[in-house]
Amino acid sequence: MNVIITAFERSPDGGQGLARDMRLRWALEEVGQPYEVRLVSFRAMKEPAHLAVHPFGQIPTYEEGDLALFETGAIVFHIAERHAGLLPADAHGRARAITWMFAALSTVEPPILELGTARIVESDKPWSKERLPLVEDRVRNRLHQLSSRLGDADWLDGRFSAGDLMMVSVLLRLKSSGILNGFPNLLAYVARGEARPAYVRAFDAQLAINKPLPR
Amino acid sequence: MNVIITAFERSPDGGQGLARDMRLRWALEEVGQPYEVRLVSFRAMKEPAHLAVHPFGQIPTYEEGDLALFETGAIVFHIAERHAGLLPADAHGRARAITWMFAALSTVEPPILELGTARIVESDKPWSKERLPLVEDRVRNRLHQLSSRLGDADWLDGRFSAGDLMMVSVLLRLKSSGILNGFPNLLAYVARGEARPAYVRAFDAQLAINKPLPR
Repeated sequence: MNVIITAFERSPDGGQGLARDMRLRWALEEVGQPYEVRLVSFRAMKEPAHLAVHPFGQIPTYEEGDLALFETGAIVFHIAERHAGLLPADAHGRARAITWMFAALSTVEPPILELGTARIVESDKPWSKERLPLVEDRVRNRLHQLSSRLGDADWLDGRFSAGDLMMVSVLLRLKSSGILNGFPNLLAYVARGEARPAYVRAFDAQLAINKPLPR
Repeated sequence: MNVIITAFERSPDGGQGLARDMRLRWALEEVGQPYEVRLVSFRAMKEPAHLAVHPFGQIPTYEEGDLALFETGAIVFHIAERHAGLLPADAHGRARAITWMFAALSTVEPPILELGTARIVESDKPWSKERLPLVEDRVRNRLHQLSSRLGDADWLDGRFSAGDLMMVSVLLRLKSSGILNGFPNLLAYVARGEARPAYVRAFDAQLAINKPLPR
Protein backbone atom coordinates (compact mmCIF):
# COMPACT_ATOMS: atom_id res chain seq x y z
CA MET A 1 0.00 0.00 0.00
CA ASN A 2 1.46 3.35 -1.05
CA VAL A 3 2.16 5.85 1.72
CA ILE A 4 1.79 9.52 0.81
CA ILE A 5 2.73 12.30 3.20
CA THR A 6 2.39 16.05 2.72
CA ALA A 7 5.11 18.63 3.27
CA PHE A 8 5.54 22.36 2.72
CA GLU A 9 6.07 23.32 -0.89
CA ARG A 10 8.63 25.68 0.58
CA SER A 11 9.48 25.15 4.23
CA PRO A 12 9.73 28.29 6.38
CA ASP A 13 13.08 27.02 7.70
CA GLY A 14 14.53 26.61 4.22
CA GLY A 15 15.44 22.98 4.77
CA GLN A 16 16.83 22.90 8.31
CA GLY A 17 14.61 19.91 8.95
CA LEU A 18 12.40 21.57 11.56
CA ALA A 19 9.14 21.20 9.63
CA ARG A 20 7.09 18.34 10.98
CA ASP A 21 7.17 16.22 7.84
CA MET A 22 10.77 15.53 8.92
CA ARG A 23 9.50 13.51 11.89
CA LEU A 24 7.44 11.28 9.59
CA ARG A 25 10.26 10.91 7.10
CA TRP A 26 12.59 9.89 9.91
CA ALA A 27 10.13 7.34 11.29
CA LEU A 28 9.47 5.90 7.82
CA GLU A 29 13.22 5.63 7.17
CA GLU A 30 13.79 3.92 10.55
CA VAL A 31 11.30 1.19 9.66
CA GLY A 32 12.28 0.98 5.98
CA GLN A 33 8.90 2.01 4.58
CA PRO A 34 9.07 3.84 1.22
CA TYR A 35 6.85 6.89 0.88
CA GLU A 36 5.80 9.56 -1.55
CA VAL A 37 5.58 13.24 -0.77
CA ARG A 38 2.92 15.66 -1.97
CA LEU A 39 4.01 19.28 -1.60
CA VAL A 40 1.41 21.78 -0.41
CA SER A 41 1.53 25.57 -0.67
CA PHE A 42 0.54 27.81 2.24
CA ARG A 43 -2.54 28.79 0.29
CA ALA A 44 -3.57 25.21 -0.48
CA MET A 45 -3.20 24.27 3.22
CA LYS A 46 -6.17 26.49 4.04
CA GLU A 47 -8.38 25.22 1.21
CA PRO A 48 -11.21 22.68 1.59
CA ALA A 49 -9.39 19.76 -0.04
CA HIS A 50 -6.55 19.91 2.50
CA LEU A 51 -8.80 20.86 5.43
CA ALA A 52 -10.81 17.70 4.76
CA VAL A 53 -7.72 15.71 5.76
CA HIS A 54 -6.19 18.18 8.23
CA PRO A 55 -8.84 20.23 10.09
CA PHE A 56 -6.17 22.62 11.44
CA GLY A 57 -4.77 23.38 7.97
CA GLN A 58 -1.24 22.22 8.61
CA ILE A 59 1.26 19.66 7.39
CA PRO A 60 2.02 16.79 7.60
CA THR A 61 -0.78 14.44 6.69
CA TYR A 62 -0.53 10.73 5.97
CA GLU A 63 -2.50 8.74 3.45
CA GLU A 64 -2.38 4.99 3.00
CA GLY A 65 -5.14 3.53 0.86
CA ASP A 66 -8.40 4.80 2.33
CA LEU A 67 -6.85 5.78 5.67
CA ALA A 68 -6.13 9.50 6.06
CA LEU A 69 -4.46 10.80 9.22
CA PHE A 70 -3.19 14.15 10.46
CA GLU A 71 -1.21 15.12 13.58
CA THR A 72 2.48 14.26 13.66
CA GLY A 73 2.43 12.30 16.92
CA ALA A 74 -0.46 10.13 15.80
CA ILE A 75 1.16 9.39 12.47
CA VAL A 76 4.54 8.50 13.99
CA PHE A 77 2.70 6.24 16.41
CA HIS A 78 0.75 4.64 13.55
CA ILE A 79 4.01 3.93 11.71
CA ALA A 80 5.64 2.62 14.89
CA GLU A 81 2.72 0.33 15.60
CA ARG A 82 2.64 -1.24 12.15
CA HIS A 83 6.35 -1.83 11.61
CA ALA A 84 9.14 -3.21 13.77
CA GLY A 85 11.90 -0.92 14.98
CA LEU A 86 10.33 1.99 16.83
CA LEU A 87 8.57 0.37 19.79
CA PRO A 88 9.87 -2.37 22.13
CA ALA A 89 8.17 -5.73 21.80
CA ASP A 90 7.46 -6.12 25.53
CA ALA A 91 4.26 -4.48 26.76
CA HIS A 92 5.83 -2.41 29.56
CA GLY A 93 8.69 -1.12 27.45
CA ARG A 94 6.19 -0.27 24.71
CA ALA A 95 3.99 1.70 27.15
CA ARG A 96 7.04 3.61 28.39
CA ALA A 97 8.19 4.46 24.86
CA ILE A 98 4.69 5.78 24.11
CA THR A 99 4.90 7.79 27.33
CA TRP A 100 8.02 9.53 26.04
CA MET A 101 6.27 10.35 22.76
CA PHE A 102 3.51 12.10 24.67
CA ALA A 103 6.01 13.73 27.03
CA ALA A 104 7.94 15.17 24.09
CA LEU A 105 4.80 16.60 22.50
CA SER A 106 2.78 17.76 25.46
CA THR A 107 5.32 18.53 28.18
CA VAL A 108 8.61 19.47 26.50
CA GLU A 109 7.51 20.99 23.18
CA PRO A 110 4.92 23.57 24.34
CA PRO A 111 7.39 25.87 26.14
CA ILE A 112 9.77 25.47 23.18
CA LEU A 113 7.03 26.58 20.79
CA GLU A 114 6.25 29.49 23.12
CA LEU A 115 9.87 30.50 22.90
CA GLY A 116 9.64 30.46 19.11
CA THR A 117 6.55 32.66 19.29
CA ALA A 118 8.28 35.06 21.68
CA ARG A 119 11.42 35.25 19.54
CA ILE A 120 9.76 35.52 16.15
CA VAL A 121 6.03 36.32 16.14
CA GLU A 122 6.23 38.78 19.06
CA SER A 123 9.74 40.07 18.36
CA ASP A 124 8.44 43.52 17.37
CA LYS A 125 6.24 43.93 20.46
CA PRO A 126 7.19 46.45 23.14
CA TRP A 127 7.40 43.69 25.77
CA SER A 128 9.55 41.37 23.70
CA LYS A 129 12.94 42.04 25.32
CA GLU A 130 11.72 42.06 28.89
CA ARG A 131 9.55 38.96 28.49
CA LEU A 132 12.02 36.71 26.68
CA PRO A 133 14.07 35.65 29.75
CA LEU A 134 10.86 34.46 31.44
CA VAL A 135 10.00 32.24 28.51
CA GLU A 136 13.57 30.96 28.28
CA ASP A 137 13.47 30.03 31.95
CA ARG A 138 10.39 27.89 31.38
CA VAL A 139 12.25 26.01 28.68
CA ARG A 140 15.36 25.62 30.88
CA ASN A 141 13.23 24.25 33.69
CA ARG A 142 11.97 21.43 31.46
CA LEU A 143 15.43 20.79 30.02
CA HIS A 144 16.89 20.53 33.49
CA GLN A 145 14.35 17.86 34.40
CA LEU A 146 14.85 15.99 31.15
CA SER A 147 18.63 16.18 31.50
CA SER A 148 18.44 14.77 35.04
CA ARG A 149 16.36 11.86 33.84
CA LEU A 150 18.52 11.07 30.81
CA GLY A 151 21.74 11.16 32.83
CA ASP A 152 24.50 9.45 30.88
CA ALA A 153 22.21 7.04 29.05
CA ASP A 154 22.18 6.97 25.26
CA TRP A 155 18.39 7.00 24.99
CA LEU A 156 15.47 7.73 27.32
CA ASP A 157 14.49 4.15 28.06
CA GLY A 158 16.80 1.40 26.86
CA ARG A 159 17.03 1.18 23.08
CA PHE A 160 16.17 3.96 20.63
CA SER A 161 12.39 4.26 20.24
CA ALA A 162 9.67 6.47 18.80
CA GLY A 163 9.91 8.34 22.12
CA ASP A 164 13.50 9.32 21.35
CA LEU A 165 12.62 10.15 17.76
CA MET A 166 10.03 12.60 19.00
CA MET A 167 12.12 14.04 21.84
CA VAL A 168 15.17 14.63 19.63
CA SER A 169 12.91 16.26 17.01
CA VAL A 170 11.48 18.59 19.65
CA LEU A 171 14.90 19.51 21.06
CA LEU A 172 16.24 20.24 17.57
CA ARG A 173 14.00 23.31 17.54
CA LEU A 174 16.28 24.80 20.21
CA LYS A 175 19.46 24.47 18.21
CA SER A 176 19.62 28.07 17.01
CA SER A 177 18.80 29.47 20.48
CA GLY A 178 21.97 28.19 22.16
CA ILE A 179 19.93 27.08 25.19
CA LEU A 180 20.93 23.45 24.72
CA ASN A 181 24.58 24.38 25.31
CA GLY A 182 23.79 24.49 29.01
CA PHE A 183 22.92 20.77 28.91
CA PRO A 184 25.83 18.77 27.48
CA ASN A 185 24.08 15.41 27.82
CA LEU A 186 21.07 16.70 25.87
CA LEU A 187 23.36 18.13 23.19
CA ALA A 188 25.01 14.71 22.85
CA TYR A 189 21.59 13.03 22.83
CA VAL A 190 20.42 15.23 19.95
CA ALA A 191 23.68 14.58 18.09
CA ARG A 192 23.16 10.82 18.49
CA GLY A 193 19.74 11.21 16.92
CA GLU A 194 21.08 13.27 14.03
CA ALA A 195 23.81 10.69 13.41
CA ARG A 196 21.38 7.85 12.77
CA PRO A 197 21.45 6.77 9.12
CA ALA A 198 17.65 7.00 8.94
CA TYR A 199 17.77 10.59 10.20
CA VAL A 200 20.41 11.51 7.64
CA ARG A 201 18.40 10.01 4.78
CA ALA A 202 15.26 11.83 5.94
CA PHE A 203 17.12 15.10 6.36
CA ASP A 204 18.67 14.91 2.91
CA ALA A 205 15.30 14.13 1.34
CA GLN A 206 13.63 17.21 2.82
CA LEU A 207 16.66 19.37 2.04
CA ALA A 208 16.51 18.34 -1.60
CA ILE A 209 13.14 20.06 -2.01
CA ASN A 210 14.07 23.17 -0.03
CA LYS A 211 16.63 25.76 -0.95
CA PRO A 212 18.69 27.08 1.96
CA LEU A 213 17.49 30.54 2.94
CA PRO A 214 19.81 33.40 1.97
CA ARG A 215 21.76 34.66 5.01
CA MET B 1 -4.05 -5.91 39.32
CA ASN B 2 -4.55 -2.80 41.46
CA VAL B 3 -4.37 0.51 39.68
CA ILE B 4 -3.01 3.45 41.66
CA ILE B 5 -3.00 6.99 40.33
CA THR B 6 -1.62 10.13 41.94
CA ALA B 7 -3.47 13.42 42.38
CA PHE B 8 -2.83 16.75 44.10
CA GLU B 9 -3.24 16.62 47.86
CA ARG B 10 -4.95 19.94 47.32
CA SER B 11 -5.75 20.87 43.72
CA PRO B 12 -4.98 24.47 42.70
CA ASP B 13 -8.48 24.69 41.21
CA GLY B 14 -10.15 23.63 44.44
CA GLY B 15 -12.06 20.77 42.82
CA GLN B 16 -13.24 22.22 39.51
CA GLY B 17 -11.93 19.09 37.86
CA LEU B 18 -9.22 20.78 35.80
CA ALA B 19 -6.29 18.91 37.37
CA ARG B 20 -5.08 16.17 35.07
CA ASP B 21 -5.90 13.28 37.38
CA MET B 22 -9.49 14.01 36.31
CA ARG B 23 -8.71 12.77 32.79
CA LEU B 24 -7.47 9.45 34.18
CA ARG B 25 -10.42 9.12 36.54
CA TRP B 26 -12.80 9.76 33.68
CA ALA B 27 -11.10 7.17 31.45
CA LEU B 28 -11.05 4.60 34.25
CA GLU B 29 -14.73 5.22 34.95
CA GLU B 30 -15.62 4.89 31.25
CA VAL B 31 -14.06 1.42 31.11
CA GLY B 32 -15.23 0.36 34.58
CA GLN B 33 -11.77 -0.11 36.06
CA PRO B 34 -11.58 0.54 39.84
CA TYR B 35 -8.59 2.56 41.02
CA GLU B 36 -6.95 3.89 44.11
CA VAL B 37 -5.65 7.42 44.53
CA ARG B 38 -2.48 8.45 46.30
CA LEU B 39 -2.44 12.14 47.14
CA VAL B 40 0.81 14.05 46.68
CA SER B 41 1.74 17.43 48.15
CA PHE B 42 3.47 20.09 46.06
CA ARG B 43 6.60 19.48 48.08
CA ALA B 44 6.54 15.71 47.61
CA MET B 45 6.08 16.13 43.84
CA LYS B 46 9.60 17.54 43.61
CA GLU B 47 11.23 14.87 45.78
CA PRO B 48 13.23 11.89 44.47
CA ALA B 49 10.57 9.25 45.19
CA HIS B 50 8.01 11.00 42.96
CA LEU B 51 10.58 12.15 40.38
CA ALA B 52 11.57 8.51 39.92
CA VAL B 53 8.10 7.90 38.50
CA HIS B 54 7.46 11.36 37.01
CA PRO B 55 10.66 13.05 35.77
CA PHE B 56 8.85 16.39 35.38
CA GLY B 57 7.58 16.40 38.97
CA GLN B 58 3.88 16.54 38.15
CA ILE B 59 0.72 14.55 38.62
CA PRO B 60 -0.84 12.24 37.56
CA THR B 61 1.13 9.03 37.54
CA TYR B 62 -0.20 5.52 37.05
CA GLU B 63 1.00 2.35 38.73
CA GLU B 64 -0.20 -1.15 37.97
CA GLY B 65 1.94 -3.92 39.39
CA ASP B 66 5.48 -3.23 38.24
CA LEU B 67 4.43 -0.85 35.46
CA ALA B 68 4.81 2.84 36.30
CA LEU B 69 3.74 5.49 33.80
CA PHE B 70 3.54 9.27 33.74
CA GLU B 71 2.07 11.70 31.19
CA THR B 72 -1.69 12.00 31.02
CA GLY B 73 -2.05 11.25 27.31
CA ALA B 74 0.04 8.11 27.53
CA ILE B 75 -1.89 6.85 30.54
CA VAL B 76 -5.30 7.48 28.99
CA PHE B 77 -4.07 5.68 25.89
CA HIS B 78 -2.80 2.77 28.01
CA ILE B 79 -6.21 2.48 29.67
CA ALA B 80 -7.99 2.77 26.31
CA GLU B 81 -5.82 0.09 24.78
CA ARG B 82 -6.36 -2.44 27.56
CA HIS B 83 -10.10 -2.09 28.06
CA ALA B 84 -13.05 -1.86 25.70
CA GLY B 85 -14.99 1.39 25.44
CA LEU B 86 -12.57 4.16 24.52
CA LEU B 87 -11.22 3.11 21.11
CA PRO B 88 -13.13 1.75 18.09
CA ALA B 89 -12.46 -1.89 17.25
CA ASP B 90 -11.72 -1.27 13.55
CA ALA B 91 -8.13 -0.30 12.74
CA HIS B 92 -8.91 2.90 10.83
CA GLY B 93 -11.37 4.22 13.38
CA ARG B 94 -8.88 3.41 16.12
CA ALA B 95 -6.10 5.34 14.33
CA ARG B 96 -8.40 8.32 13.90
CA ALA B 97 -9.42 8.31 17.58
CA ILE B 98 -5.73 8.28 18.55
CA THR B 99 -5.21 11.17 16.13
CA TRP B 100 -7.76 13.22 18.07
CA MET B 101 -6.01 12.43 21.34
CA PHE B 102 -2.77 13.83 19.96
CA ALA B 103 -4.59 16.77 18.35
CA ALA B 104 -6.17 17.68 21.70
CA LEU B 105 -2.83 17.58 23.50
CA SER B 106 -0.43 18.99 20.97
CA THR B 107 -2.51 21.29 18.75
CA VAL B 108 -5.47 22.53 20.80
CA GLU B 109 -4.16 22.54 24.37
CA PRO B 110 -0.87 24.50 23.95
CA PRO B 111 -2.51 27.86 23.10
CA ILE B 112 -5.04 27.24 25.90
CA LEU B 113 -2.21 26.70 28.39
CA GLU B 114 -0.52 29.85 27.06
CA LEU B 115 -3.73 31.72 27.77
CA GLY B 116 -3.69 30.41 31.33
CA THR B 117 -0.10 31.58 31.72
CA ALA B 118 -0.95 35.00 30.30
CA ARG B 119 -4.03 35.38 32.54
CA ILE B 120 -2.51 34.07 35.75
CA VAL B 121 1.29 33.75 35.83
CA GLU B 122 1.92 36.96 33.87
CA SER B 123 -1.11 38.90 35.10
CA ASP B 124 1.07 41.34 37.07
CA LYS B 125 3.43 42.08 34.18
CA PRO B 126 3.38 45.49 32.48
CA TRP B 127 2.51 43.88 29.11
CA SER B 128 -0.30 41.75 30.46
CA LYS B 129 -3.28 43.79 29.29
CA GLU B 130 -1.93 44.60 25.85
CA ARG B 131 -0.74 41.07 25.14
CA LEU B 132 -3.82 39.15 26.27
CA PRO B 133 -5.95 39.75 23.12
CA LEU B 134 -3.13 38.31 20.99
CA VAL B 135 -3.08 35.11 23.01
CA GLU B 136 -6.88 34.90 23.00
CA ASP B 137 -6.88 35.21 19.21
CA ARG B 138 -4.57 32.21 18.92
CA VAL B 139 -7.02 30.18 20.98
CA ARG B 140 -9.99 31.40 18.92
CA ASN B 141 -8.22 30.47 15.73
CA ARG B 142 -7.91 26.85 16.88
CA LEU B 143 -11.46 26.78 18.21
CA HIS B 144 -12.78 28.07 14.92
CA GLN B 145 -11.06 25.21 13.08
CA LEU B 146 -12.23 22.64 15.60
CA SER B 147 -15.77 23.98 15.51
CA SER B 148 -15.83 23.78 11.70
CA ARG B 149 -14.73 20.16 11.81
CA LEU B 150 -17.16 19.12 14.53
CA GLY B 151 -20.13 20.76 12.80
CA ASP B 152 -23.34 19.38 14.25
CA ALA B 153 -21.93 15.97 15.11
CA ASP B 154 -22.09 14.69 18.67
CA TRP B 155 -18.45 13.55 18.77
CA LEU B 156 -15.35 14.12 16.64
CA ASP B 157 -15.40 10.83 14.75
CA GLY B 158 -18.45 8.62 15.14
CA ARG B 159 -18.93 7.30 18.66
CA PHE B 160 -17.42 8.81 21.81
CA SER B 161 -13.74 7.86 22.10
CA ALA B 162 -10.57 8.64 24.04
CA GLY B 163 -10.10 11.44 21.50
CA ASP B 164 -13.30 13.10 22.70
CA LEU B 165 -12.40 12.48 26.33
CA MET B 166 -9.15 14.35 25.80
CA MET B 167 -10.61 17.13 23.67
CA VAL B 168 -13.46 17.83 26.09
CA SER B 169 -10.95 17.84 28.98
CA VAL B 170 -8.80 20.38 27.16
CA LEU B 171 -11.75 22.63 26.28
CA LEU B 172 -12.99 22.57 29.87
CA ARG B 173 -9.97 24.71 30.76
CA LEU B 174 -11.60 27.55 28.81
CA LYS B 175 -14.83 27.51 30.75
CA SER B 176 -14.01 30.44 33.04
CA SER B 177 -12.67 32.58 30.17
CA GLY B 178 -15.99 32.85 28.34
CA ILE B 179 -14.22 32.24 25.01
CA LEU B 180 -16.22 29.08 24.34
CA ASN B 181 -19.43 31.13 24.26
CA GLY B 182 -18.47 32.19 20.75
CA PHE B 183 -18.69 28.55 19.63
CA PRO B 184 -22.12 27.10 20.47
CA ASN B 185 -21.37 23.68 19.00
CA LEU B 186 -18.22 23.36 21.11
CA LEU B 187 -20.14 24.46 24.21
CA ALA B 188 -22.70 21.74 23.53
CA TYR B 189 -19.91 19.23 22.86
CA VAL B 190 -18.30 19.99 26.23
CA ALA B 191 -21.69 19.74 27.93
CA ARG B 192 -22.26 16.31 26.34
CA GLY B 193 -18.95 15.19 27.80
CA GLU B 194 -19.78 16.53 31.24
CA ALA B 195 -23.16 14.78 31.15
CA ARG B 196 -21.67 11.32 30.74
CA PRO B 197 -22.22 9.21 33.86
CA ALA B 198 -18.51 8.27 33.92
CA TYR B 199 -17.55 11.95 33.87
CA VAL B 200 -19.93 12.72 36.71
CA ARG B 201 -18.56 9.89 38.86
CA ALA B 202 -14.99 11.01 38.18
CA PHE B 203 -15.81 14.63 38.90
CA ASP B 204 -17.52 13.81 42.18
CA ALA B 205 -14.59 11.64 43.26
CA GLN B 206 -12.05 14.43 42.77
CA LEU B 207 -14.37 17.00 44.33
CA ALA B 208 -14.68 14.86 47.44
CA ILE B 209 -10.98 15.35 48.21
CA ASN B 210 -10.93 19.05 47.37
CA LYS B 211 -12.76 21.80 49.09
CA PRO B 212 -14.37 24.38 46.79
CA LEU B 213 -12.39 27.60 46.77
CA PRO B 214 -14.02 30.50 48.66
CA ARG B 215 -15.61 32.97 46.24
